[in-house]
Amino acid sequence: MEALRQRLRQVALAEMNSDPAHDLAHLDRVWENARTIASDMANLDMTALLAAAYLHDLINLPKASPNRAQASTLSAKRAAKLLPTLSLTKGQVAATCHAIEAHSFSAGIMPETNEARILRDADRLDALGAIGIARWFATSNEMGRPFYDPDDPFAKNRTPDDRRFALDHWRMKLQALSGGMCTKKGRIMAQERVDHMVDFLAQLATELGTELPGDWRA
Amino acid sequence: MEALRQRLRQVALAEMNSDPAHDLAHLDRVWENARTIASDMANLDMTALLAAAYLHDLINLPKASPNRAQASTLSAKRAAKLLPTLSLTKGQVAATCHAIEAHSFSAGIMPETNEARILRDADRLDALGAIGIARWFATSNEMGRPFYDPDDPFAKNRTPDDRRFALDHWRMKLQALSGGMCTKKGRIMAQERVDHMVDFLAQLATELGTELPGDWRA
Repeated sequence: MEALRQRLRQVALAEMNSDPAHDLAHLDRVWENARTIASDMANLDMTALLAAAYLHDLINLPKASPNRAQASTLSAKRAAKLLPTLSLTKGQVAATCHAIEAHSFSAGIMPETNEARILRDADRLDALGAIGIARWFATSNEMGRPFYDPDDPFAKNRTPDDRRFALDHWRMKLQALSGGMCTKKGRIMAQERVDHMVDFLAQLATELGTELPGDWRA
Repeated sequence: MEALRQRLRQVALAEMNSDPAHDLAHLDRVWENARTIASDMANLDMTALLAAAYLHDLINLPKASPNRAQASTLSAKRAAKLLPTLSLTKGQVAATCHAIEAHSFSAGIMPETNEARILRDADRLDALGAIGIARWFATSNEMGRPFYDPDDPFAKNRTPDDRRFALDHWRMKLQALSGGMCTKKGRIMAQERVDHMVDFLAQLATELGTELPGDWRA
């Protein structure tokens, strides 16, 4: 298993167009999250889960790209070409590719296996908590997006728009992520991380001389 | 005072080479911090402090630039040219420019007036707390710097190097910032923000499956 993991890391490193929010360390964290969630469940193909964790972001398109929603499907296609060289069975290749294509929020493909549910949760967990905060603001810089609307940081009197302001991403996506978790363990881990993010946002509000609105709390 | 503030905002907006960590919202926060610190102190030239808060980053060089240490001196020179058009007296221009040139850590110029001490603390406060965390990771992306060393995130067995890893910046600069505060109120505010950052780092360590080393706590 460790030998396969090291080979998958090499493949990912060679193939990925990485940025600080999508790099080898992200893949390592997703695999760790996946293992933690899997420890609660039985009858899993851990080889397929491992391969899916390391190859799920093979095609990493910029957040602003119009083809962003296709990234997971394209990653699955690329993985299907690479996986037969890594001694996976046909069934494992299919299981890996389904998990990859179904992992993303924006692709709209439902996970139909436990491996796919675990990968989806493991990847979502990396958008939450302290690491989620780090990735949130790194991605904002990548997009050239300011942190907040100086006239209304917490969108009290306007519709949130995360193409314009980083903080708005909380209201449009991050806050709801924990509600869409597919596994029991994933839900528990997500809630802990969301609680930490609410603490961060409350502290930020204090620093900006205001208070966090009630509907920003989880 | 509000009319001058709005004119200074316009000047800064037209002149600044801004990024998400150095934009008009940063200047607004520094001015708010400066006002909060100033509320504790007497005999201040609030006009000079206001002008210094809004013009301190007129020249914003990239973190990686070899001339980065000169940015505050260059900003003071540029401010000296712009300020006479804003009806400041010669004495106020001099006070503003001294505060600007002495605000930065890397310039090595000591603040000799209370206005300069306040600006330095107000700017440092914006590197701490929740907003400091947001700016930290936005700047990391700007530098193309990964969040941490996957083999040793908290630099237990190597010398921290913040040109290579974002987290290392805590040990090399951020952790010590609160110790260098020049005002009483600034010190109190800084400690509250440092405490929040330690909570963030402890949570991050947990998410990475490890513990925050004792010497990373403030």
